[in-house]
Amino acid sequence: MAGNSFGKIFKLTTFGESHGIAVGGVIDGCPPEIFVDEEFIAQEINRRKPGNYKNSTARKEDDKVEFISGLFEGKTTGAPIAFIIKNTDHKSSDYDELKDVFRPSHADYTYLEKYGIRDYRGGGRASARETVSRVVAGAIAKLILRKYGIDIFAYTSQLGNIEISDNIKDINPSAIENDILFCPDKKASVLMQQLLDKLKQEGDSTGCVINCVVKCCPAGLGEPVFDKLQADLAKAMLSIPAAKGFEYGEGFKSSSMKGSEHNDIFKSENNKIILESNHSGGIQGGISNGEDIYFKIAFKPISSINKMQKTVDINGNNIEISIKGRHDVCVVPRVIPVVEAMTALVILDHLLLNITIK
Amino acid sequence: MAGNSFGKIFKLTTFGESHGIAVGGVIDGCPPEIFVDEEFIAQEINRRKPGNYKNSTARKEDDKVEFISGLFEGKTTGAPIAFIIKNTDHKSSDYDELKDVFRPSHADYTYLEKYGIRDYRGGGRASARETVSRVVAGAIAKLILRKYGIDIFAYTSQLGNIEISDNIKDINPSAIENDILFCPDKKASVLMQQLLDKLKQEGDSTGCVINCVVKCCPAGLGEPVFDKLQADLAKAMLSIPAAKGFEYGEGFKSSSMKGSEHNDIFKSENNKIILESNHSGGIQGGISNGEDIYFKIAFKPISSINKMQKTVDINGNNIEISIKGRHDVCVVPRVIPVVEAMTALVILDHLLLNITIK
Amino acid sequence: MAGNSFGKIFKLTTFGESHGIAVGGVIDGCPPEIFVDEEFIAQEINRRKPGNYKNSTARKEDDKVEFISGLFEGKTTGAPIAFIIKNTDHKSSDYDELKDVFRPSHADYTYLEKYGIRDYRGGGRASARETVSRVVAGAIAKLILRKYGIDIFAYTSQLGNIEISDNIKDINPSAIENDILFCPDKKASVLMQQLLDKLKQEGDSTGCVINCVVKCCPAGLGEPVFDKLQADLAKAMLSIPAAKGFEYGEGFKSSSMKGSEHNDIFKSENNKIILESNHSGGIQGGISNGEDIYFKIAFKPISSINKMQKTVDINGNNIEISIKGRHDVCVVPRVIPVVEAMTALVILDHLLLNITIK
Amino acid sequence: MAGNSFGKIFKLTTFGESHGIAVGGVIDGCPPEIFVDEEFIAQEINRRKPGNYKNSTARKEDDKVEFISGLFEGKTTGAPIAFIIKNTDHKSSDYDELKDVFRPSHADYTYLEKYGIRDYRGGGRASARETVSRVVAGAIAKLILRKYGIDIFAYTSQLGNIEISDNIKDINPSAIENDILFCPDKKASVLMQQLLDKLKQEGDSTGCVINCVVKCCPAGLGEPVFDKLQADLAKAMLSIPAAKGFEYGEGFKSSSMKGSEHNDIFKSENNKIILESNHSGGIQGGISNGEDIYFKIAFKPISSINKMQKTVDINGNNIEISIKGRHDVCVVPRVIPVVEAMTALVILDHLLLNITIK
Repeated sequence: MAGNSFGKIFKLTTFGESHGIAVGGVIDGCPPEIFVDEEFIAQEINRRKPGNYKNSTARKEDDKVEFISGLFEGKTTGAPIAFIIKNTDHKSSDYDELKDVFRPSHADYTYLEKYGIRDYRGGGRASARETVSRVVAGAIAKLILRKYGIDIFAYTSQLGNIEISDNIKDINPSAIENDILFCPDKKASVLMQQLLDKLKQEGDSTGCVINCVVKCCPAGLGEPVFDKLQADLAKAMLSIPAAKGFEYGEGFKSSSMKGSEHNDIFKSENNKIILESNHSGGIQGGISNGEDIYFKIAFKPISSINKMQKTVDINGNNIEISIKGRHDVCVVPRVIPVVEAMTALVILDHLLLNITIK
Repeated sequence: MAGNSFGKIFKLTTFGESHGIAVGGVIDGCPPEIFVDEEFIAQEINRRKPGNYKNSTARKEDDKVEFISGLFEGKTTGAPIAFIIKNTDHKSSDYDELKDVFRPSHADYTYLEKYGIRDYRGGGRASARETVSRVVAGAIAKLILRKYGIDIFAYTSQLGNIEISDNIKDINPSAIENDILFCPDKKASVLMQQLLDKLKQEGDSTGCVINCVVKCCPAGLGEPVFDKLQADLAKAMLSIPAAKGFEYGEGFKSSSMKGSEHNDIFKSENNKIILESNHSGGIQGGISNGEDIYFKIAFKPISSINKMQKTVDINGNNIEISIKGRHDVCVVPRVIPVVEAMTALVILDHLLLNITIK
Repeated sequence: MAGNSFGKIFKLTTFGESHGIAVGGVIDGCPPEIFVDEEFIAQEINRRKPGNYKNSTARKEDDKVEFISGLFEGKTTGAPIAFIIKNTDHKSSDYDELKDVFRPSHADYTYLEKYGIRDYRGGGRASARETVSRVVAGAIAKLILRKYGIDIFAYTSQLGNIEISDNIKDINPSAIENDILFCPDKKASVLMQQLLDKLKQEGDSTGCVINCVVKCCPAGLGEPVFDKLQADLAKAMLSIPAAKGFEYGEGFKSSSMKGSEHNDIFKSENNKIILESNHSGGIQGGISNGEDIYFKIAFKPISSINKMQKTVDINGNNIEISIKGRHDVCVVPRVIPVVEAMTALVILDHLLLNITIK
Repeated sequence: MAGNSFGKIFKLTTFGESHGIAVGGVIDGCPPEIFVDEEFIAQEINRRKPGNYKNSTARKEDDKVEFISGLFEGKTTGAPIAFIIKNTDHKSSDYDELKDVFRPSHADYTYLEKYGIRDYRGGGRASARETVSRVVAGAIAKLILRKYGIDIFAYTSQLGNIEISDNIKDINPSAIENDILFCPDKKASVLMQQLLDKLKQEGDSTGCVINCVVKCCPAGLGEPVFDKLQADLAKAMLSIPAAKGFEYGEGFKSSSMKGSEHNDIFKSENNKIILESNHSGGIQGGISNGEDIYFKIAFKPISSINKMQKTVDINGNNIEISIKGRHDVCVVPRVIPVVEAMTALVILDHLLLNITIK
């Protein structure tokens, strides 16, 4: 109810504040006898690590996941899997001067309005630091999905006003993984990096668009009415800090299309039913149809900027601040594994749920 | 789990197929002692009625809601409110010829893949007819929200490639309500109507964009991590048939904005904290901040078109069909009260949920 | 949240008041392609019918279930199954004189305290009439369980101070079904009937104990910690009106036993692991072990009695009442199919849930 | 779904195995601004500590709770409260010889049947060690309930065949707290201690009955149909390891009572409605009526005994074992704070839930 859990069967609950002892999570409902490849999990965490890209937050998070329960001789047992990632490099003092301040477009004001109390250190629970727990759970979900041949990858398709011209059929996952900004278009990536450098110097930030693709998702996932697959994906994506929009298939572009252009035509070939196009984005009537599922998420610019900004303090005084802490210029590249993790959680949960009806 | 319920505290479960005896719903968790204004509910259903606009489906649905339980002397008692709306004008025979056919971009194929069985008559459970139950529950939610001064209105902002230039501050709710397409821009509405006429003649359909605004929502609604207010709104909107995208605040536009442009600046005026702008769309850190909440939903073109289309039948034969049934050219105007209803369900549920923490 | 739903995967929501238009329910999560044997359902409802036994309430409920959704050509489709049972013989006027009265040991007072409003006609939502919806859903659950070879039967083991000496191994289900009080011991049944006659004349009522057995339940059902199989059974049983206690296996008797007496000893015979005794009642560590699951439920005497009783009215006046309505002397025999139905809901839900982990 | 969570609004998820790194839990939905009195929590844990009574398990658990998140300057913030209690004194080697053995009446067999894998060390997740996490959460719940004047206490009313003659009106909470077995009857306690000594020498164990009382619970808690207050209490109690039965009010005794004996009569005195008796146990129609809530729980004898027992190993060989580990003779006295904790969780959850309907 309080919103710290996600999923129905494979259920993740996260906990922990940016500047507390640790962040972590509990996975309840993980199937037994899954080998938990800790090296793979470490890699996934690493992809989200600040400092991977020079403009990322200077905060050094040498994130190491410690499993507390649910594993026996390296395998899941069906018991809840609890894990923590200690907060080793948290200079709370950085935040002392922000103690009484509502940072513009941060959650400072709304948390205080809601709870009457807030942990002001580094955004507390509202910090993007929370998402590292999602990456851990998502990595375990990916390990299970692999057994079913399902693969998920996300990439940067726009940063500021630099866009790639993408076509999901042509995206090469290794080109994504080899790029420092997870951008499959080398030229665009170079321009994006230049933009990040420029904004860093200006003390400003930028928004971006992330694309995500689910390959080889079996037909039949998704519940028809309220828990449509796209509805659960939309919720998952909009739960990521700074996300402002979600679209799947043709998305907003479909608003100006005609039915005769947008409809995906079935064809029978060699006794198999295939689709001639995939405007629908792999989902029809809320249920996966076996085609690639693809969608985009819009992210706003990072709210913490080094420029002088007007704001108020908790006593209602008009003041000016410049946020000196260590912060990124853009959610790219760190948000990429988070998008993949949330996608993995949604797909796995629907896969397990679907098993019950067969 | 099977996805026919929505909400945590004010929980709606819908049931019923397009061509069965009735559609309906059960609301569990409605507060007691609410006067259920049946006239208002009838009006809301009426706004969704086919035939309101000449290009809407010719099917005559004289929708009358019958309350079966949960009311006593016109008021809610805290017991579950069950209601049905009979399906009076359902010509199942219209669908006999589609019995063995997978209509392009419909849920026919995915339902059969998922369940191994399907009610092919008029889309069965996948029909947009299901949404009338949402409108009934949404109307009751609106009645409760009114007591808190919260108002919700949706309007058409784009149809095909005809867009209005809107500014939420200037939208006049009565201008919306007086327009046959719920479009506040009279000129645009005329062009949209012409486009609908043209497409009707061509046997084609079109997509659209709907905007929605929540006025006077108190600060503090929304749960910080997974159940952020925008995440629940996104899920609600993407659960509406034909929805393809959701964005709130600046949405996808924020991807190319700088932090210095996008940040909303706090100001203290007359001992009240106000915001100089509302790029955030009334939500920060997943929690409402007291400003107007506004968002957009993209809808794809209606899949049923009168043009000849290639497809396959359930035996895997390549065939051609033209869908002769009665169907709309666009989800506008009928989707408007559905968008409002789903919004009301989300806002009310978070309002009730928030009460528990105080 | 408001407590009108039961189950996680196979989820029943009930609605309706004793003297409203109808009572009914919605089952969400029923597997598709189940043949719904309406004759069997009618039989199950019939077993609960008042008037089966002469001392049962004189109210004639010619209960006929009407399915509104979720079935297609006699089979489930995976869509929610809504059904209603009309209230044909409800003389609300019977209750006019009780309008302002708190009947002793009824829910009149607590409902008004909780909701500030109540439907006083016949107990409204608190009436045992609600349980007919459980019987319908339980009947469908039984039809599915039968496919897995699982059988459930309940019987009367005590009424007032008349007890049978039972041994679950020796109970013959047909002896139960042929007895008007569902009591497998003919002699005891005769004494029980005499007691009921006597109490009827006195205008009094009596409590009873019901036993229930689940035969051929596979090992592995139940979730270890909070959702232990016995915990969910206990909740199910205590949710039945008038239930006051639950015990499984040796129950309260185990409190005075030694470990060396109570422990069930494993034995290997013909390459199969069997148990030499079943003191545990078929569940260990919250999970079924393949043995018969057996348990007992205590029911208090019916609160409505024809004797003059002191009480207060809603204005706080001390008054005297004699409840003239039609009411039973004991929950036996009508509660028997309700106990079985709730058991079937629990077992089926855990069966479906268990499938997801394999 | 996997059963490691309890509660709807104040929701506890527990994790951890007996012989892993730690056990712990996450509380989601705790109201903000609650002062978490760590000394009180330590006392509560201490009441459950082995070694408090000489016949308790010799295992020394110097249980110290470490809060990982959700507290800021000693107060709750509304964020999830995660905590762990390290397993300091776990000799896994004790269990090596039980690795391939199914201990009689333990969860060894059923876990392996369910999951295909098990953590055999000390019962793993099935160990009563898990309940320490419930005590921590229950202590926080008690702190909140105190603000509402609600008090909960449990006591030993039967051990083997030694019973106290109790009357809840006369129980003195301090007499309970001062007794080593939490038994308010000094004479009975001495006999119970003698019985425990005798059984210890014999290598045997015994069952017991625990009573629990909720004082000053406001009227209106509980949801009428499936989530009746007694139903949720029954589930909570039967989720405690070794619990075999639950009854409230007159319980099984009510089965042989008449309505005229059992009914609680309302009386108006000084403008207040009071009850002349409390046979109902403080709950009517599933909702608390403001009287004391009282109930009993039956516990079976501890399954681990030092006597030689026949059993089978995982390869199906008939063998003999004597369980040498450190184990208690009875769940008394250690189960007392667990019963109170589970009661506190149920009452608090219903209290918070009830707030939403007002």
